[in-house]
This record gives sequence, structure tokens and C-alpha cells, in this order.
Amino acid sequence: TQYFKEYAEKIPGESTQKLSEVAKECSIYLVGGSIPEEDGGKLYNTCTVFGPDGAMLAKHRKVHLFDIDIPGKIQFRESETLSPGNSFSVFDTPYCKVGLGICYDIRFAEMAQIYGQQGCQLLIYPGAFNLTTGPAHWELLQRGRAVDNQVYVATVSPARDEKASYVAWGHSTVVNPWGEVIAKAGAEETVIYADIDLKKLEEIRQQIPILSQKRCDLYGTEMKK
Amino acid sequence: TQYFKEYAEKIPGESTQKLSEVAKECSIYLVGGSIPEEDGGKLYNTCTVFGPDGAMLAKHRKVHLFDIDIPGKIQFRESETLSPGNSFSVFDTPYCKVGLGICYDIRFAEMAQIYGQQGCQLLIYPGAFNLTTGPAHWELLQRGRAVDNQVYVATVSPARDEKASYVAWGHSTVVNPWGEVIAKAGAEETVIYADIDLKKLEEIRQQIPILSQKRCDLYGTEMKK
Repeated sequence: TQYFKEYAEKIPGESTQKLSEVAKECSIYLVGGSIPEEDGGKLYNTCTVFGPDGAMLAKHRKVHLFDIDIPGKIQFRESETLSPGNSFSVFDTPYCKVGLGICYDIRFAEMAQIYGQQGCQLLIYPGAFNLTTGPAHWELLQRGRAVDNQVYVATVSPARDEKASYVAWGHSTVVNPWGEVIAKAGAEETVIYADIDLKKLEEIRQQIPILSQKRCDLYGTEMKK
Repeated sequence: TQYFKEYAEKIPGESTQKLSEVAKECSIYLVGGSIPEEDGGKLYNTCTVFGPDGAMLAKHRKVHLFDIDIPGKIQFRESETLSPGNSFSVFDTPYCKVGLGICYDIRFAEMAQIYGQQGCQLLIYPGAFNLTTGPAHWELLQRGRAVDNQVYVATVSPARDEKASYVAWGHSTVVNPWGEVIAKAGAEETVIYADIDLKKLEEIRQQIPILSQKRCDLYGTEMKK
């Protein structure tokens, strides 16, 4: 976690300026992973999104700070260095609405439920699980979020660097609303592609209508601010 | 669904009386699958639980009625025949607290979240997925509920009868709070055993403390009655 401070930038700053330029140059929507952001003396784990004109469409600060302690396997306390974000992050495209989370955020089902309620059809989580949690939970969590909310889920991980102090699992993935993995990277650096098929999403929502059959008279997941 | 009416019973009635006797005779906690219950002219899909003294500890009426329409594969409209239950069902044992759902109830993450909040360490879902939803979602949903709420999840399915009008997937399963399948039946009639290890559950909750790191200031899943 000492790297957070070393590499922290303002937003806008060097990295996000570059992301903006690339989004404009390629005329794409670009979800730019996450970087350590410095703002008002605090550090955040922040993901920025740029549109085809280079404008910033969303800035998500990681809401759930990752503190893990599995003796003999992995210890990591993000909250020693970082401050948490305090809001949900959604952006619109002409194709669909997208909800954003970063890494550990994916473990919190409520966040995805709220994005689903807000009309998101795609959830994107940049994240770096490790060699303990990766094989155990990385794909499971994505498939769970996808099936429970009948949305597409995409994750983007750094490739694996065995010499890094924190070794990432890799395996960037895209899951469809039926819970099927439709694209998946290995541990190495690569590019993967997937189509977000909104017709298929609608079909699944009609076939197993969990979203309209929720018992809103009995329970609900709600935003508090 | 015509069988619901044909086999419906009052509770207490013939089947539940037998369950009570067996629980007492064997001195066990017995979660007795589910039967069609008739009460006040209405039919419910109901699961009863008996303790070692033969007393009924819980009666869960399926909260979410299963209406599915996958063209060319499976159509089923439970709501044409059944009325829904309107409450959550939890029972205590000297070992742990248990939350109950029936089949389609498992698709609704909120229900499991509420059981988790109420202190359940084991969720039990009698259920009969079919040959379409079974291979796609039966295990995934259990593993998802287990990991998201850090609880044990057990499902109990009828064995497969290829000649039945509704062919069940089978595959009764037990999943631990790490999301691992620790016991699993095939499609045929069988008995499976699993230990519910509350020490392991506590360890997992300490290692990845999602329950204490939920952002209750930002969101919450709540009961409405």
C-alpha cells in the first residue's frame, strides 16, 4: 500500500489526461481502471470514465476499503492509507446505462442491486483479486451479480506479475445475465472482446422474471444518501 | 401444477404428522421438504420443520411463486394455483440459527441477506430446479448466497424422475461460507452428509470481514413487515 502515496495524482492529472485523449482519439467510451487519487490531502482508489469527446463521464471512488487477513496467505489493509468514496457511480451511454465498482466493491451485493434498480444493464468492476481470493471468488462473484440482477458484468484486472508485492489473479472476464462467462483472459497481458446483447438481456428478464417478482412489500434494498 | 390441488393437505395433517413422529423417534431436527398446504380455501407451497421432541418449529410458505416461460424448454405458472407466503421463516437450534426458503426463493438475494442479518448461519432451501435452470443456476445460486452472506447453504431436491410431468434436476448440495461445495448428490435417490463448522464460518468472517465492512451509511436491505 506504500505505492498508493507514491503514485497518487490529482484528477485531472497526467494519467487521466491521457485516458481522456485516448477516448477522444479512438472515439470510444473508456473505463480507465483505477489509480490512487490525491484530493484535499486524502487518497482514494479512483476509477475515471471518459466519453468519445474526451469528457469525463464518471469518477468512482472505491466505496469499500479492502482489509483482509488470512494468516500465512495474505494480509492487506487498504484503510490504513486510503479514504473511502461515499457514492454510487453510474454513467449513461447511447447503448446502455453502466454502474461502476472497484475490486472489493464487488463483494457487496447491495451495491449491484442498487445499480440494477437504477436501470444499469452492465456493471464494470476494475479490480485485482489475489492468488487466494482470485481462484476462490473472482468468477463466482461476477456470475452471482449477473444472475441476481440479470445484468452483464465485466471485470478488468491487471495481468499477473509474480515479482510484484501484490500479485494479481488477472483473468479479466465478461459474464452475461444468464451467468455464463462469455469472454475471459488468462493471467497474462491480453485484449478480450464481448458483445453486450441487450436483446438477450430482455429475453432473460422475461423468461425468469425475478425483477418484477421481487416482493417489494416484504423487503427492499435502498440507498441511504 | 394440477397435482398441488390433488395432494394438498391441512397442516397438521397426514404428512406433517409423520414428519413430527420421525423427528421425535430419531431425536433430530427435521426440515421436511415442501408439500402443498390447504388453508382457508387457498393453497401454499409449504415447508415444515420439526424438533427432537416432535414439535413444529417453523412453517415456511414459499414467498416467491415461480412463473417461468422459456419457449420450447419450460413453461410453469405456479401463481395460477398457489398463494404466496408473506413472511420470513427462521428457527433456532442449539447449534445455530437457520433461515428457510423454498426453491425459487433462492433467486432473491434480499431474502438471504435478511436471514444473514437476523443471525442465521445456515440457510436451507428445499427445491426442485429443472433440467434448464438446474445446470445453469442451482449450484451458482447456492454458492453466491453462501459467499455473499458468509453462511452455510443447503439445498434438498427430489431425485430425478424422467417420467414425471416436471423433471427435477436433483443434486441436493451443501455449500460452506467460502463458497465451496462440501457435499453433493447426483440425480438419483441418495443420502448426503455434511458438517456445519461454525468455527470455520467465524474464521472466514474474520478473514474477509464483509459483514462488518458493509456501508450501512450508504445502503441497506430491510424487511418491510
